[in-house]
Formats: sequence, C-alpha cells, structure tokens
Amino acid sequence: MAEQQQQQQSSSTSFSPLPPRNINKPIPIFTPLQRLPAKPSFPPPFYPQDQQPSSPTIAIGIQGAGLQKPISMQSTVSPPRTNEELTPLIDAHILKVLEDLNSEKEYTPQIVKDLSKPTEELAQTIDHTLLKPEATEDQIKSLCEEAVQHGFKSCCINPTHVRLVATTLSETTKTIPCSVIGFPLGTSSTSSKCYESSLAILDGAKEIDMVIPIGHLLSKNYSYVYNDILSVVRATKGLPVKVIIETSLVKTQEEKIAACWIAAEAGAMWVKTSTGFSGGGATVEDVRLMRLAVAHKEGVKVKASGGVRNFEQAINMIKAGASRIGTSNGVAIMADQEKKEASGSEKKEESY
Amino acid sequence: MAEQQQQQQSSSTSFSPLPPRNINKPIPIFTPLQRLPAKPSFPPPFYPQDQQPSSPTIAIGIQGAGLQKPISMQSTVSPPRTNEELTPLIDAHILKVLEDLNSEKEYTPQIVKDLSKPTEELAQTIDHTLLKPEATEDQIKSLCEEAVQHGFKSCCINPTHVRLVATTLSETTKTIPCSVIGFPLGTSSTSSKCYESSLAILDGAKEIDMVIPIGHLLSKNYSYVYNDILSVVRATKGLPVKVIIETSLVKTQEEKIAACWIAAEAGAMWVKTSTGFSGGGATVEDVRLMRLAVAHKEGVKVKASGGVRNFEQAINMIKAGASRIGTSNGVAIMADQEKKEASGSEKKEESY
Repeated sequence: MAEQQQQQQSSSTSFSPLPPRNINKPIPIFTPLQRLPAKPSFPPPFYPQDQQPSSPTIAIGIQGAGLQKPISMQSTVSPPRTNEELTPLIDAHILKVLEDLNSEKEYTPQIVKDLSKPTEELAQTIDHTLLKPEATEDQIKSLCEEAVQHGFKSCCINPTHVRLVATTLSETTKTIPCSVIGFPLGTSSTSSKCYESSLAILDGAKEIDMVIPIGHLLSKNYSYVYNDILSVVRATKGLPVKVIIETSLVKTQEEKIAACWIAAEAGAMWVKTSTGFSGGGATVEDVRLMRLAVAHKEGVKVKASGGVRNFEQAINMIKAGASRIGTSNGVAIMADQEKKEASGSEKKEESY
Repeated sequence: MAEQQQQQQSSSTSFSPLPPRNINKPIPIFTPLQRLPAKPSFPPPFYPQDQQPSSPTIAIGIQGAGLQKPISMQSTVSPPRTNEELTPLIDAHILKVLEDLNSEKEYTPQIVKDLSKPTEELAQTIDHTLLKPEATEDQIKSLCEEAVQHGFKSCCINPTHVRLVATTLSETTKTIPCSVIGFPLGTSSTSSKCYESSLAILDGAKEIDMVIPIGHLLSKNYSYVYNDILSVVRATKGLPVKVIIETSLVKTQEEKIAACWIAAEAGAMWVKTSTGFSGGGATVEDVRLMRLAVAHKEGVKVKASGGVRNFEQAINMIKAGASRIGTSNGVAIMADQEKKEASGSEKKEESY
C-alpha cells in the first residue's frame, strides 16, 4: 500500500498531480480492491498530461467492475467529463440534429435489402427477448431453441439467465447471449452496473444492454450519465454496449438527443429506445430522431425495442433507421408474411 | 496464493475436505477476491465437522459482496441447503399454514394501538417511497423533507439515491434510508445483489428491500431462492432485510407460503408483498396469509406495499397483520382523516 502511494507520488511529480476528489459527486466509492490490504501487482495508471482524466472517480467504477488493472487512458475511449464541459457541446448538438430533422432526405436502410418478406437478413436484426421476472428455465430454453431455429441475432435475457443461455447456445455462432444491466429502471449505482456487466460477460454474454440513469438525465446532470455509460463501456472490455434511453420517460426531443449524444460519446455502440417496462415503446419518430442524433459517430446504431409485435412494425422501424429490433414476438414477425398475404398488404396501425 | 492453498489443505486435513464444487449450479463464480493475486490477510474459514456447509459456492456470494473476511459458519444464520432437503420441509409448512388459515382466530395488531386516526405510531409504520426511474434529486430531497415532517419510519429509494438520502437524513434518527436491491425484477444474479447491498450500506442504507428470483421460485428451485436470500442477508451484516415476494406474479397460496418460509429461514426480518412495478399490489388476503406463513419464526414481520393509497387501506393492512406500509402516498394517508370525517366514515373500495 505504501509502495503504491510512493509510486503514485513519483509518477505525479513526473507528470502532474491528480486533481482532488470531488466529495459531492454521487459516484460510489466502494471498491473491493480499495478495501483489500493487498499489494497491487500492477503499476499505477499512466496519465499523459494532455489526456489526464478530469476526475479520478472513474477509476473506481472500473475497479469496482473487477478488472485486474486500470485501463490505460491511451485507449480510444474518452476520459470522464464535467457538466460545464458537456453542456455547451450537447446544446450545440441538439440544435444541429433538430435542423437535420427538418431538412432530412429519404433514408435507405442498408442492413436489410429485401423489405417485402421475412428473410435471413431480417432474422439477424432481431434480439429475441424474454425479460419477464417470472420466466422459468424451461421458458428460457424454449427461447433459445426458437432463436436458433429462426436464426435470430441474439437472445436478450436477464443476468440470472445468462449462463443457461450461453450454455444452450454454445453450439451456434449465429445467435449470441445478450444481457440487460441495471434493468429496467437504470437506478442501480454505476459501480453495480459495472459489476453486473463483468459478471454477465464471465457468464457468457456477448452484448450488454444497459439502462441510463434517467433521473440524472432529466436533472441535466450530464456528467453523471456520461460517466455511468463510460464506466460500463470500459467494464465490458470491447463488447458492444447498447444504451437504453427509455423514450417513454425522456419526453422531449432535446432530452432524447442529449441522451444519444452522451451514449455515443461515451463509447456505446448502440442507442436503444425502450425497456418495455415503463410504458410506451419504440416509435418511428423516435427511431428517426435517434438515428440522426448518433449520425456524427461512425458505427453507432439504433435498436428499436418495446411494442414491436409484427412484420409490418419491424419493417417500419428498419425503414426509419433501426439496425436491430428487440422483441418478444420474433417468431410472429418471421411468420407474419402468410397472414399479411392473406389479408392483402394494407397497413395496420397498432397501439402499444 | 500458494500459501493460501497450503493453508486450506492443512485445515482440510485437520477437519474434513470440502465437498467438490457442483459445476452445474447457477450461482456465478466471479469474485474480485478470487481474481486478485493478493496474499490473504485472514485465516481460511473454520468449518466444524457438524456445521460444514453443504456447498462451498455460497462463500463466493459472500466474497462477491466485498466482505473482507468470510463469515464464520458459527454465525446464527443457517448454511445453504439443497432442493432435496428444502422441498419436504416447505411442503409440510404449506399444509400447516393452510390449516391455520382456515382455523384462525381474530388477530389484534400490536404495533399501532389507535386505529381510528393517523398517529405518530402509524407514521412510524410507513416507508415513504419514491422508486420511479425518472425521479430527480429535487424530488428525492422533497421526499426526505416530507418523511421528516411526518415522522415516517424510512425513505425507500433506489440505490443511486441512497447517498443523497443518507446525507439529507443525517440530522434525524426517526427516519432512516432504505434501499431496494435487484429491483424490481429480482433477476440480477445473487452476487450482484450482494454487491449492490454492500454498496447501499456503505452509502448509508439502514434497511434493504430485495426482490426474490421469481422464476426460480415458480420452477420450484427452492435452493436457488434460499441461497439468494441467505447471501444478501449475510452481505447486509445484521441490517434488516425485507424480501419482496411479488404476490402479483406468485399466484398460488402454496407458492406464497413457500416464498415466505424460505425468506424467514434464510434470515430475513421481513416479507413484503409487492414492488408496485409488476401489476397488482398488497391485498388483505395476502397480508393475512403471509403473516401466518412467517409466524413460526419469531420477529419476522410483514410489509404491505403497492397500491396502499389512503388511511383506510393502510389500517386494513395493519389489521390483517402488516407491521409496515410501503407507499408513495404517506402524506395522503396522514392527512386522510379530515377527508374521512367530512364524508362520514363509510368504507371505500378502491382498485389498485
């Protein structure tokens, strides 16, 4: 311990001292590493002058997630940021996206070419989902069987089922386990979300769907939201993170754009509309808005989830810009074509 | 590490070897302690021959919670148990409670003596609750102010708000912070629930409301449910744990009794009806059933939560056997008397 302090001191004299910890920050200080009397087996993190983190609390999130070493600040993920730094950037982005929204040209989805019928390509956009708390092991096994049978992209399940799903899907490469984190309220602490993510990955999850701390977003505490997502992105060590912004609770376009910007900047690969547990679900307008809100970050995509119940709705989401559909009705979506052909191809409006 | 193994070996020769780990068990094996190359500062746990745990996996749950030392098996909490061991005990208990239910005499609540008007005693049965994911810091502060003003027993909030509530309530001893865990689905892993509990306690929580893994209960995987609750009870190091059995999803009387028995046996101080997030809420019948189902364990009480909106409903819950009311309508309950007097004291039936 003394040696660690000495090393930190010597490193801080050669670069510059770490800023003092802000004790008013709501990020928890609990970490198993901190409370162990262990001699660390790794050198203290190296922070070049120009990439120094604005607050050392983020390291807590990382260690809390149980990583063996702090991730070097030389990684491509950006360091934590303050509200003062984030607010003007977000305000400018909101203006730009709202402008784009008015002047937008027709969008052609690349991910599924044939939008007239269920295809293998369409199946590979579907996260086959079972998140009911009362789901039994047998129901989870059926979910996996259906997913393999139809060639869905993933099985999206609660953390307690990840190991079972990973075992059941171990023979296939087409369908992967996807775990939700901090679900469905997003109100567990940042450190808990990191720990939960690390566990899910050790259990076999290949994708992580996390929920943002919605109250902090609505209070414009952008820094908390950013650090929350950033910490989970780091804890997942390169696996894709989908950030659920819960559009039914984040009501204004401005807030939705802010959430998308923060997620993309914090290194998430996806923004996702809904948990399906807080009322409301994906709408074409939200998907379109979210696609534009993450367009500045190459490779960041949109997942439409909540209330997508048939082929027509799924295709509408894809046309609006969704690259993934989260639904518990994947089987119905793939089978819907017959029904559609029987009843002509008139459009159906369905409420969620 | 080598030394630790040596110590374990030497201890196992003097007592008896630990049983082999059951690799099919769904309890996660991730623990920060395990993955650290640290020399442990504590001796290996002492297991007397007659109290040896039937499975060592439970120790993982404890370490995952970040406790500095494994808790000695000599504690008053019972060791983990298998399904084979639990099922006959639970079946017998179900029969007994159903019998009691038919032959039960009038129950007189001890906790509140004057049931005709809102009193200080009644206020001290109320957990003032705000669990909406979109709750902002200002709303949480208002919640604390109301709780102090009316003398409620606790503020029941999500983990992300525990520190704020603990700080706001630091001047009072009458109102304590109470954190929900694995909320509202109960589908995070056992280890995550332990970690989340430890964090909440470090942040200042004085009571823990956890959700059971409902799917495992419905699959009759009693051992999983028992170990889940037992692990959280241990991680909370003596603070009261309330176990939410989510009566709206656990439909049969038998399943409700089983859940109550498991919670009481695993060391929980409370059984609680509902999260309020999965439809339905507390009913007089459920509270009565749950009171009888935990009657065999001295000191275990019932919390009625979900849909308790006025004074009349609160009193009905207390008459049925609830010792605590979880509600976001505490202020209305305390103020309801005037309304009641104005409209006569006829009984109102309200749907949830």
